[in-house]
Amino acid sequence: MRKLFIIFFAFFSCTVSFAQSEDSIMIRRIADEILLHSKAYDNLHDLTKNIGGRLSGSPGFYNAEQWGLKALQQSGADKAWLQECKIPHWVRGGKDEATANIASQKKNLDVIALGNSVGTGPKGISANVVEVRSFEELETKRDSIKGKIIFYNYKFNPTFVNVFQAYGDAVRYRGAGASQAAKYGGLAVIVRSMSESTDNNPHTGSLQYDTTLPKIPAVAIGLKDADLLDSVLRHKSVNVLLKTNGHFLPDTIGHNVIGELTGTEFPGEYITIGGHLDSWDPAEGAHDDGAGIVHTIEVLRAFKALGFKPKHTIRFVLFANEENGLRGGIKYAEEAKTKNEKHVFALESDAGGFSPRGYSFGGSAEQLEKLQSWIPLLIWYGVYQIAGGGGGADVSPLRANLKTPVAELAPDTQRYFDYHHTRNDVFENVNKRELELGAVNVAALIYLVDKYGL
Amino acid sequence: MRKLFIIFFAFFSCTVSFAQSEDSIMIRRIADEILLHSKAYDNLHDLTKNIGGRLSGSPGFYNAEQWGLKALQQSGADKAWLQECKIPHWVRGGKDEATANIASQKKNLDVIALGNSVGTGPKGISANVVEVRSFEELETKRDSIKGKIIFYNYKFNPTFVNVFQAYGDAVRYRGAGASQAAKYGGLAVIVRSMSESTDNNPHTGSLQYDTTLPKIPAVAIGLKDADLLDSVLRHKSVNVLLKTNGHFLPDTIGHNVIGELTGTEFPGEYITIGGHLDSWDPAEGAHDDGAGIVHTIEVLRAFKALGFKPKHTIRFVLFANEENGLRGGIKYAEEAKTKNEKHVFALESDAGGFSPRGYSFGGSAEQLEKLQSWIPLLIWYGVYQIAGGGGGADVSPLRANLKTPVAELAPDTQRYFDYHHTRNDVFENVNKRELELGAVNVAALIYLVDKYGL
Repeated sequence: MRKLFIIFFAFFSCTVSFAQSEDSIMIRRIADEILLHSKAYDNLHDLTKNIGGRLSGSPGFYNAEQWGLKALQQSGADKAWLQECKIPHWVRGGKDEATANIASQKKNLDVIALGNSVGTGPKGISANVVEVRSFEELETKRDSIKGKIIFYNYKFNPTFVNVFQAYGDAVRYRGAGASQAAKYGGLAVIVRSMSESTDNNPHTGSLQYDTTLPKIPAVAIGLKDADLLDSVLRHKSVNVLLKTNGHFLPDTIGHNVIGELTGTEFPGEYITIGGHLDSWDPAEGAHDDGAGIVHTIEVLRAFKALGFKPKHTIRFVLFANEENGLRGGIKYAEEAKTKNEKHVFALESDAGGFSPRGYSFGGSAEQLEKLQSWIPLLIWYGVYQIAGGGGGADVSPLRANLKTPVAELAPDTQRYFDYHHTRNDVFENVNKRELELGAVNVAALIYLVDKYGL
Repeated sequence: MRKLFIIFFAFFSCTVSFAQSEDSIMIRRIADEILLHSKAYDNLHDLTKNIGGRLSGSPGFYNAEQWGLKALQQSGADKAWLQECKIPHWVRGGKDEATANIASQKKNLDVIALGNSVGTGPKGISANVVEVRSFEELETKRDSIKGKIIFYNYKFNPTFVNVFQAYGDAVRYRGAGASQAAKYGGLAVIVRSMSESTDNNPHTGSLQYDTTLPKIPAVAIGLKDADLLDSVLRHKSVNVLLKTNGHFLPDTIGHNVIGELTGTEFPGEYITIGGHLDSWDPAEGAHDDGAGIVHTIEVLRAFKALGFKPKHTIRFVLFANEENGLRGGIKYAEEAKTKNEKHVFALESDAGGFSPRGYSFGGSAEQLEKLQSWIPLLIWYGVYQIAGGGGGADVSPLRANLKTPVAELAPDTQRYFDYHHTRNDVFENVNKRELELGAVNVAALIYLVDKYGL
């Protein structure tokens, strides 16, 4: 296109008049500060390229703790510290391999062991594959599962416009597929990756074993190889040799990294903003959740740069161990409860560094309505919907234990599952401006909640 | 993130109740058809990879005409034809080069000649560079312009959330910079690329000469090299040798490619949907405007697949020559006027294959209000704002000549100027689902306008 420009105005017939209010001016100042001077993109480059993957217990995670502490200090936190918690320590233990034997031809399949999975042992597991498209089909085939590798080929439903709904629909096969197959004597499982991307990158992510059943190894498979396996299995049997090495080491020590801006009026009342510092190991954790980490640090930097002094104490939290345990989020809420802290609001960014569209919220209907009344102040920056029934994983223990209202930034979802838990969740797949607009919106909402409460 | 799913609902306090209406059901059917069976992504692959760049008058453009005609026929058009128009025929004529001489070191700068620019001649133009940051600064330096190469280093303003506003603000330097410099005896111009991307790819695009002034060559420069040039010029003089070969051949013949679904009630009243078939030459024109082309074809395919029979005749138009002449759009409107056709509405997709957010509209306040009343039907699919003061370039002559209300799909703008008119406007930078959601929304709006008029 060559033509000039378009100005968007939101013409809601019932728009509340916030025009030129003190709040709209302050939010414009926040946006200008971040869009002109943000360090979010540079911080993300540093975190992803100089530290990289940072699964709980890995050297990368400990490097990230120190990096995060320094970043919060340098961004102007009044205080910053490490909050100790026990974390699980799962290791991949080597390269994951799957070789299919199809009509005497060997074909390597692109797989990755699921997090928390046991390994196959060095000799691997070799067995014929039984494909099922659902747990219901597993039941109908229960007598033919024993001694086999079970291939769960349940697809994302493309008609869910919000791709997180497709994930919510399909992820039970990653979470529970192994134990369901073990119940009928399956030896291992191959799960179609949680994605509808056009590439073949397999997506890891955690599984949960039913501890009353044998633990069997599980891998995710790339979508192209899943479709290949499916097409071959329609006509002939396929033997697969799986080799994985995942195992747990003893629980170890990790830390939430916390920075604070002390409140001027209510220093003993807390507003939390955070993301999670750990990431899966195939790549750099750029969207998941490097984006949330640098959003959190950027809000602090911008508040300090603007000389903004919050009424409540604002906590900037880089949570430990979201991916395979949530121990950081649980610890944070436990300590808050023990100390009888009052937590006014907690906001997480853990849905990627994409263009913001809204928030999900967990709290009362009245609180939701109050948040929604601010949409006219936020819509210029991309936020037009705030929905109930949500909130971020790391802040969910605050909701459960202290009834804190919680929310999560909800950016555009279309590309998230192209990158989530794969080898291409890298810095290069994050757009600088989309990332910065996330920080703008998070800062704006924190400003409003601090000013007006919830 | 590992957690399950979030459901977004739009909670507008004044939401019109369209729930479960006939329209919401039909739009859901359209969305399901496209999200499940779209050919948009495959068509885009075919157009970009098998035809590629398709500047007016180039072999690629004529290949694209035949490709488009076949695609419209195969997608079920009742009629499809080529509408002849005269088109300009500018050719790049070879590789564009710029070599800076900085303290006796030679440094190649990443440049691309602007469209419509004259060339430097085979020996090139060698001169010292004068940097200006605005036309105002050009005026203050008017006495030192003669015999120099003028470097317009006007940056995109990052505080415009909608990046098209930054483009609208900066593009005058690309459009008019050459003639403004020629007025004071400048020999050539280097224009900072119309972008705020993080890479160094230069962005072409058309310039317009003031025919009362000498025509001097113009190139765009990548942002990193622009910043380098700026930093060096603060301390020392820089000589640049520019070599470009652009020139016009005589006007030639091109065609709008048109398909039609004949209306059941008002066959002589037209609704147009289109994009432009031509593209700049450095790459494949994937977002600009392959996306709009495959949106257009996809709407036809989906309507046929659903057995939808429009009341009005719907024209699916692949316009010729948007980029450096708009001759296709002008011809289309001229013929409509000559034949005294009644055009009810015209909609363009020419802002890339990104996640939809709204429409820009050109028409009356009452028409805008009617369109906005449909937002509750569209918001689930991403459209939440419809703004006045817009409409697509190719449909603007319909507005000017026939007072047709016009609109343009307005996807998220953050990434558009990373790709626009550069070597990386390629298929790989288009996300399948984002592209498909554009088609969903365009089809939904056409359905509503066909049913209710405007």
